[in-house]
Amino acid sequence: MAERSYAIIGTGALGGFYGARLAKAGLDVHFLLHSDYRHVRDHGLAVDSVEGDFTLPDVHAYGHAADMPRCDVVCLCLKTTANGLLGKLLTPVVADDGVVLVLQNGLGIEEQVAGIVGPGRVMAGLCFLCSNKVGPGHICHLDYGYVTLADYAAKGRACGVTERMRAVGGDFEAAGIPVRYAEDLPLARWQKLIWNVPFNGLSVVLRTSTDRIMANEHTRRLAEELMREIAAAANASAGRIIDDGFLRGQLRDTEKMAPYRPSMLLDCEAGRPMEVEAIFGAPLRAARQAHCPTPRLETLYQLLKHIDSGRGA
Amino acid sequence: MAERSYAIIGTGALGGFYGARLAKAGLDVHFLLHSDYRHVRDHGLAVDSVEGDFTLPDVHAYGHAADMPRCDVVCLCLKTTANGLLGKLLTPVVADDGVVLVLQNGLGIEEQVAGIVGPGRVMAGLCFLCSNKVGPGHICHLDYGYVTLADYAAKGRACGVTERMRAVGGDFEAAGIPVRYAEDLPLARWQKLIWNVPFNGLSVVLRTSTDRIMANEHTRRLAEELMREIAAAANASAGRIIDDGFLRGQLRDTEKMAPYRPSMLLDCEAGRPMEVEAIFGAPLRAARQAHCPTPRLETLYQLLKHIDSGRGA
Repeated sequence: MAERSYAIIGTGALGGFYGARLAKAGLDVHFLLHSDYRHVRDHGLAVDSVEGDFTLPDVHAYGHAADMPRCDVVCLCLKTTANGLLGKLLTPVVADDGVVLVLQNGLGIEEQVAGIVGPGRVMAGLCFLCSNKVGPGHICHLDYGYVTLADYAAKGRACGVTERMRAVGGDFEAAGIPVRYAEDLPLARWQKLIWNVPFNGLSVVLRTSTDRIMANEHTRRLAEELMREIAAAANASAGRIIDDGFLRGQLRDTEKMAPYRPSMLLDCEAGRPMEVEAIFGAPLRAARQAHCPTPRLETLYQLLKHIDSGRGA
Repeated sequence: MAERSYAIIGTGALGGFYGARLAKAGLDVHFLLHSDYRHVRDHGLAVDSVEGDFTLPDVHAYGHAADMPRCDVVCLCLKTTANGLLGKLLTPVVADDGVVLVLQNGLGIEEQVAGIVGPGRVMAGLCFLCSNKVGPGHICHLDYGYVTLADYAAKGRACGVTERMRAVGGDFEAAGIPVRYAEDLPLARWQKLIWNVPFNGLSVVLRTSTDRIMANEHTRRLAEELMREIAAAANASAGRIIDDGFLRGQLRDTEKMAPYRPSMLLDCEAGRPMEVEAIFGAPLRAARQAHCPTPRLETLYQLLKHIDSGRGA
């Protein structure tokens, strides 16, 4: 991989932002679009960002994966609710010695992608990004943006920091995207759930922001108890230890954050399908298989399934 | 108690309905009012009922408990959220050989009333009534109305069907109010929670009616799991057995019911305080004291406390 080419599968709030940054840095980036295809083909992408606005009037835009060139790094940026399409979307786009970079939320997606492209062609990036799509080909980047890269191996093995992580990380950094490296993908995924489960879930059920959840003694305690269930599930199902210090740190950081409306709450309010299965269903099933009781996670999952179905999803 | 006099403490949707029925049947009924006092003193009570509308232009209305005569049967019809006032409201009104009839929802209220008027002067009525207050002194009775009477004794003892239960029951029946008799008050209270906890709680959290909760496989299962936790708590904390047949019957009945919006949902939507402590907090504390885990009940309690506090309660 000397000069890596990039594909962006799903040019929305996340894929549009990272892809535009990579393209702006001079990399060869190919964007798969659905509803915005014609607009972006004709007018390119526009990014309003806290780090400086920019436009890319001319980008490689595609309406079908089959029309795209094979790329070295295929960034998977769809909502997980569209992952039924992965076989059709990934197979024609990944180069033989390329890799799919899973930039989605949730547990178990790398396994699914490995089943399509082979276990040697998967890696992951855990994104901490606050951005919205505000119009066709128009992304608004509100805050944050760093990506934690981790490599994937079958059977839940940790890979350490690999060559290709550093190569992709170098491209991201050249594009102004802060990068961290995680040696153990399953641990990183479970650690991310420690925050995502309570704060995405409770924000949707209560239609409120993180500061309100933390300000009420009852929901603050519920958030902490959910974190403990996730930590227990990580240990029981994947043998990963997440200690109390990590949990306390997450609570402390959330308390210090500006009032934040998690992406799942924005999806809910906009009537879009929510990533209930990837973020709640997958860890719940992992815990069940390991005979680890997670009644609060299950309750939250059941409430979210009700809310999601009521919205026609 | 030959000719029993009645006091209605709290002339709202419930007290106004039952009190008006008793007064219409010719009984001596005295109504305590707060915001509606002047209106009812001057214009009486009006009841729109599925069983026939009626008005009582002239009723015994009082703005203060201290102005009321001592009565044989003092019906406690306030929302439990006002129970901080019970000492002031009950003491001047109960006759020496009178009784407080607790018509409120929830666990532990008879104990509280016994602490004020003495354990020999408490009995309970579990109401299954669908009514609203639609204006000053104006009650709309939508459906149901039966009362399950049970007598109270200290230390959670069952009393059987007592003389005074039959006496009060006779008055209610003469007023057209269907009556049932329960031999064991703690069992009756826990049985009522089997329905109230899942359906009042989930209807508020999801802002939906009972039919929607039952129609979604996830929340139907959650309702059933909540019922199991309440049954376990009844056994652990009070030694009362509520078997699976009872639970299945409650689920079946709820499925057959017309779409129903429980009273707590109506309170929530109207911005009134919700009876979270009486219906959720009290059984949760009883379960905890008995070392019986009820994580779903606790989660629901925490969510409801958040919702209730957010509404300024």
